[in-house]
Amino acid sequence: MPARVLDGNAIAAEIRNEVSAQIARHAVEHGSIKLSSILLGANPAALLYAESQKRRCLQAGVQHELVELPEDAGQTALLETIDRLNADPGVTGIMLHLPLPAWIDSAAAQYRIDPYKDVEGVNPANIGLLFYDVPLIAPCTALAVNEMIHRSGVEIRGAHAVVVGQSRIVGRPVSMFLTTNEATVTTCNVHTRDLKQHTRDADILVVAVGKPKLIGADHVKPGAVVIDVGINSVKQRDAAGNEVRRTVGDVDFDAVCAVASAITPVPGGVGPLTVAMLLRNTVEAAKKQLHRVY
Amino acid sequence: MPARVLDGNAIAAEIRNEVSAQIARHAVEHGSIKLSSILLGANPAALLYAESQKRRCLQAGVQHELVELPEDAGQTALLETIDRLNADPGVTGIMLHLPLPAWIDSAAAQYRIDPYKDVEGVNPANIGLLFYDVPLIAPCTALAVNEMIHRSGVEIRGAHAVVVGQSRIVGRPVSMFLTTNEATVTTCNVHTRDLKQHTRDADILVVAVGKPKLIGADHVKPGAVVIDVGINSVKQRDAAGNEVRRTVGDVDFDAVCAVASAITPVPGGVGPLTVAMLLRNTVEAAKKQLHRVY
Repeated sequence: MPARVLDGNAIAAEIRNEVSAQIARHAVEHGSIKLSSILLGANPAALLYAESQKRRCLQAGVQHELVELPEDAGQTALLETIDRLNADPGVTGIMLHLPLPAWIDSAAAQYRIDPYKDVEGVNPANIGLLFYDVPLIAPCTALAVNEMIHRSGVEIRGAHAVVVGQSRIVGRPVSMFLTTNEATVTTCNVHTRDLKQHTRDADILVVAVGKPKLIGADHVKPGAVVIDVGINSVKQRDAAGNEVRRTVGDVDFDAVCAVASAITPVPGGVGPLTVAMLLRNTVEAAKKQLHRVY
Repeated sequence: MPARVLDGNAIAAEIRNEVSAQIARHAVEHGSIKLSSILLGANPAALLYAESQKRRCLQAGVQHELVELPEDAGQTALLETIDRLNADPGVTGIMLHLPLPAWIDSAAAQYRIDPYKDVEGVNPANIGLLFYDVPLIAPCTALAVNEMIHRSGVEIRGAHAVVVGQSRIVGRPVSMFLTTNEATVTTCNVHTRDLKQHTRDADILVVAVGKPKLIGADHVKPGAVVIDVGINSVKQRDAAGNEVRRTVGDVDFDAVCAVASAITPVPGGVGPLTVAMLLRNTVEAAKKQLHRVY
């Protein structure tokens, strides 16, 4: 029986519906929710993302402000912008579009964002609070992966989860999330000897590397849940022989479908869910600001 | 050939010597280093530890102040004490003795400590900065385990490291440290099915559970490096048949010695090294306060 395909668009739509209702209620009881997103320099991909994000926010009833800083803005200007948004009671959420130019200290900038307004969950303090099992706002990708695993029906506690990739944005937060949820977690990276030996033992396999067809059918234990966080643009020939670009993940989808019990597609899997999690975090952030502990 | 025994007392003495020289230099160039340690309530074990720590500090040339709060001190009193020490330019290091009473929110208290004065490396922000590969002050136990692995001569990058135990104080920071050092890392816990299958595959095995003889010879791959962070007090009979108490780790030392290439004893292994790392962190903290980034 082929794997169940976990439909990220459908789950994201469900979450957006739930969240939109919460946003409407919050607006009545506590005032509106506003996300300020900071874009430094004119990165076209980041601008495109920022504009699609703005549309999503407005659809859900969240106010959105794009704060644009010039390409040559320095660390001081960036930190001053963050300080101003931290201090503004009308702003309930802040995010910083990556990548930042090389002369910006990203960790210092993320650390400057008020943890209660940090809708991406990337402030080092938010990472540490997750680590201590008292999450305030958790990283969006880890939340999206967690939601996908939850929807697959597999029990995380006691399962062997293997995470391929240990990036700061995906692999590490996902591994941490799975550890705090009491899975046995193996984190692999580019230096791992005999990757297949590890992935074949996984009840839950999460892949976030950026390498098409890294994971084939013989990497996967029959019945495993496979979560593909890779996004790669590859050239292919269409039926008429023309070269076309297509987005694929790190998993050989068709081959692994025949082995896994559940799998996320690319596109339409973890990606749209991560965007929905940012919206959910934006509401969580506004709610948590009503009762600050830290 | 039996395993090389990694002598924690000897390595700790080396580190204390290096650190004492740095402390003397720092005192001449920038003024003295002072550690304030906060003890809430009259926990006898914590008081004993605090006093031995004071002795160690004075021997190394670090000023030491024990700040005692009454048993019934609340969260507010504790946070006010931390705020006062944060603001005091004469205090370069702060630590909080655990365990705290149930009515205290430990994470909130640790989060309140200035990350630059957090000599234990337990502030969530310090956990997050380690996670992002830009450590400011790292957790002492993770530093001690890392030092032991380094002394064993094994290359961490590409090795398969298995950490048994996922506590906030030991297992999780050690796993994070090994991941950022590009090992393939498996973190096991009490829910792990077939522990032996995982530990037998380890090039580096770190055990931090609190269960005597949890790890026997058949849990260990020949030639592995075994780091025992467990501390257990067990009853035994001495030669004359009298019942005596003895401190042991989680590893069946004699049995595993015959299999491993290097091993840490208990007592005299990771324990004394962790204490030395606290002293090293105390100097690091004072140095880093000279050039604040965050």
